[in-house]
Amino acid sequence: MAESVTVREVGPRDGLQMAKTMMSTGANQRWIGALVAAGVREIEVGSFVSPKKVPQMADSAVIVRSSLAFPGLHVVALVPNLRGAQDAYAAGAHRVSIPVSVSEGHSRSNVNRSPTEQVAEAGQVIEWLRDQERKVIVEAGCATAFGCSIDGIIPASAVVAIAEGLAEAGVDAIALADTVGYGNPAQVKAMIRAVRDAVGDKLQGLHLHDTMGLGIANAYAGLEEGIRHFDAALAGLGGCPFAPGASGNIVTEDLVFMLESMGFKTGIDLGCLIAARDLLHEGLPAEPMHGQTAKAGIPRTYAIAA
Amino acid sequence: MAESVTVREVGPRDGLQMAKTMMSTGANQRWIGALVAAGVREIEVGSFVSPKKVPQMADSAVIVRSSLAFPGLHVVALVPNLRGAQDAYAAGAHRVSIPVSVSEGHSRSNVNRSPTEQVAEAGQVIEWLRDQERKVIVEAGCATAFGCSIDGIIPASAVVAIAEGLAEAGVDAIALADTVGYGNPAQVKAMIRAVRDAVGDKLQGLHLHDTMGLGIANAYAGLEEGIRHFDAALAGLGGCPFAPGASGNIVTEDLVFMLESMGFKTGIDLGCLIAARDLLHEGLPAEPMHGQTAKAGIPRTYAIAA
Repeated sequence: MAESVTVREVGPRDGLQMAKTMMSTGANQRWIGALVAAGVREIEVGSFVSPKKVPQMADSAVIVRSSLAFPGLHVVALVPNLRGAQDAYAAGAHRVSIPVSVSEGHSRSNVNRSPTEQVAEAGQVIEWLRDQERKVIVEAGCATAFGCSIDGIIPASAVVAIAEGLAEAGVDAIALADTVGYGNPAQVKAMIRAVRDAVGDKLQGLHLHDTMGLGIANAYAGLEEGIRHFDAALAGLGGCPFAPGASGNIVTEDLVFMLESMGFKTGIDLGCLIAARDLLHEGLPAEPMHGQTAKAGIPRTYAIAA
Repeated sequence: MAESVTVREVGPRDGLQMAKTMMSTGANQRWIGALVAAGVREIEVGSFVSPKKVPQMADSAVIVRSSLAFPGLHVVALVPNLRGAQDAYAAGAHRVSIPVSVSEGHSRSNVNRSPTEQVAEAGQVIEWLRDQERKVIVEAGCATAFGCSIDGIIPASAVVAIAEGLAEAGVDAIALADTVGYGNPAQVKAMIRAVRDAVGDKLQGLHLHDTMGLGIANAYAGLEEGIRHFDAALAGLGGCPFAPGASGNIVTEDLVFMLESMGFKTGIDLGCLIAARDLLHEGLPAEPMHGQTAKAGIPRTYAIAA
């Protein structure tokens, strides 16, 4: 039996928030529909943040609600605080993802709190959600875990301390995020080992950016360390409005190509995934689209190997 | 002591042969000068092929001769046959690299011989060079070792058979080439192990293309298997005129960023390497230039880490 890997599409959240133009709600819904049709089973569809700070995410409640109509789709929303988590719960999200920056500078820029204060905020989210009728999975993403464009080098001990705080607060899952894309494969491996030593199987995901061209190599390093849950964005969209220098997420198409070529099962049809780029382009015609797999086309060796 | 890794720049050969316009001899020499100034110590500067087949390489003898003026630079030339090796020797190349395709289809397209016939040709090159006064290192690159756009999947046994033939013929070094860029990291590791089992330390290099976006991940996989000699092209130039679907080499800047960030020593100054792109652009203004490191700039974490 081939082993499964979850590829979570974060383009509708991490991608759209960085786009220079706004995607209409309808175009966003059609794009998400195309991703689901390609076999994507987990999508971060939006973010419950202030529409003044990130106007592209103003329709997130609508997008969460309409996404619930897709059977089997795991609908994820980013929430920076309790208020966001309450809104995400009301909209019906299956999972919330709380960003917790390890770097002080990025934490203040992103959520206007220190890392420790944001761990406490995550605790409040967990407590509030625990009292609700419907179970919502709470994930925290340790942002800037591999370096920060504001604070520079981030020591592993700082990442471990935040992960430990989050585990104590009761999060269901922890992801390590290379928010600005400065990480390298050796560092990814070492960081996974250090964090896993501290929090065990709570460490589940990797969120990688391709700023320096090492994104897919870093994903491979994570895969080798047993990570089976990766964020990625179609056409490599994304970045962080509060992290100067960050560029796009790793490209979903290239990641799926790698995983399936290596014998992992993603459940995603690569041809249909590439076709979903058309819907993205319709919704954001001015946005540059990245990715080598879409440019080269699927090689004849792929179907046989997969 | 940090371990050394050799990054061989192949842009002046693999890059220029695919460019839509011709780089002048003078511009090529200035570009090579900038690469040397950045600390690059091995460059594949040209190819002794028929100028009718690859007109961009017509000045290779001139380029080899002028490159010999750089102290400490290892000057490499690609030679498809004995005639080419004789010309490369006359020009003064320190090392010749013979392409030997594992796939029948690519071999016929590239050198108009079967793989077995090309192994025999390599044997003739080795014998002829052995009788000359000056020692020239003979390397053979097993092309299409990870798949072929003409013949499809290439079994490891076929790669091993070619590598064994080359070792018996007496080559000094063997490289595995992902000519069309279809390889994945698991395959790279498995292939290195299989070939090393057969030919031991003769297996030295990896030549990777980024067609599907896995080039740097494949380099990392090779690094993990002990490979310490990588080809790359500035700005990701390159391809193969006789392998439909192939795209550029892995980007030298991104590879150096990865290696140095991981603590390996390349001897290359990343800032000067990025500056060498200007010379490339002057010589080939219409050619698209790739690479994330040059786009993002060197992060503040780099100098400290390296």
